[in-house]
Amino acid sequence: MRVRKRKGAEEHLENHPQYVILEPEDAKGRWQEVFGNTNPIHIEVGSGKGGFITGMAKQNPDINYIGIDIQLSVLSYALDKVLEADLPNVRLLRVDGSSLTNYFTDGEISLLYLNFSDPWPKSRHEKRRLTYKDFLKTYQAILPPHGQLHFKTDNRGLFEYSLASFSQYGMTLNQVWLDLHASNYEGNVMTEYEAKFAQKGQVIYRVEAQF
Amino acid sequence: MRVRKRKGAEEHLENHPQYVILEPEDAKGRWQEVFGNTNPIHIEVGSGKGGFITGMAKQNPDINYIGIDIQLSVLSYALDKVLEADLPNVRLLRVDGSSLTNYFTDGEISLLYLNFSDPWPKSRHEKRRLTYKDFLKTYQAILPPHGQLHFKTDNRGLFEYSLASFSQYGMTLNQVWLDLHASNYEGNVMTEYEAKFAQKGQVIYRVEAQF
Repeated sequence: MRVRKRKGAEEHLENHPQYVILEPEDAKGRWQEVFGNTNPIHIEVGSGKGGFITGMAKQNPDINYIGIDIQLSVLSYALDKVLEADLPNVRLLRVDGSSLTNYFTDGEISLLYLNFSDPWPKSRHEKRRLTYKDFLKTYQAILPPHGQLHFKTDNRGLFEYSLASFSQYGMTLNQVWLDLHASNYEGNVMTEYEAKFAQKGQVIYRVEAQF
Repeated sequence: MRVRKRKGAEEHLENHPQYVILEPEDAKGRWQEVFGNTNPIHIEVGSGKGGFITGMAKQNPDINYIGIDIQLSVLSYALDKVLEADLPNVRLLRVDGSSLTNYFTDGEISLLYLNFSDPWPKSRHEKRRLTYKDFLKTYQAILPPHGQLHFKTDNRGLFEYSLASFSQYGMTLNQVWLDLHASNYEGNVMTEYEAKFAQKGQVIYRVEAQF
């Protein structure tokens, strides 16, 4: 998700250390301490403006959520939502999806979400797609054995690619939705993008896969 | 595919033993003899009116094709097409998909096609779907190690189910198409159903999976 640069975004993030973990490498292996409980921790890689993660956090107070995004402005908008809803079970990190093993130990994360990730449609950019095998290896490292990844997107090319990528990595597809909003899936929390696309009648794809 | 009963269908099939193998159990393990060459043999399970298999046979004279269907009338229409095009590389069998191991030995079939199979949408009919695990086991038995299955359908529910079923059986998805006709896939041979659905602008799904 690309958004216009927001003035004062960095200060905004720095002013809320209770939600924004500025030095997440220090929390590696002790995220339960950070949250102050032993609830499972779910992560969203590329959390954008935070609509999904804050929605999920409201719906599931007994699960802790970590949203990561590399863009300052985007993360600052997510912080607005966390502050507004005053959610004790959310933390935000400004880190890159490829560096997750710097911040989390084996199995420290119970479930990983990818939502409307950048499709990087050109073949030469395959390695940047968040469902490329190198990323899957990183995710696998921080999840428990048979840990799950839940992914949704409106991008047909990225979804086609991702199903094959998961499968070729050795993951199992537990369930696939080829038109999420037309299905009887319950409790779907929409991202900002998803709400916009859904209004246009665009198909949303979803998959639950496990290592 | 359900079609109206055709008068004289049985006689029509019996009158063309060069194309319709009436006692296929006798050919088990010696299909190369039946075709009179050592070309690879591809099978379509549920070949319907034969549009796909005859189209493929014209396009690929160095591949032998076997179409199977359990319905007499349907198979007799496929025979019309084979006769019309005078295709030496096609044979038709009136047998059931679950009984394939009675007619083919291990690895005797190089590639297996499923096209627009009956979706059997009710959960209690899951076992009748041609992508149910028991069928996959049968297909695996007649294909070589890492043998491939190519499947296309317009039915969203069946495709969602099948992707998960293949994956859970331990198959690998090599490539997935979520809108075949909008893709740059070349050489697609349409079935009778597909041509009709395509005109209506309906999405066609396709997957190449391997054991």
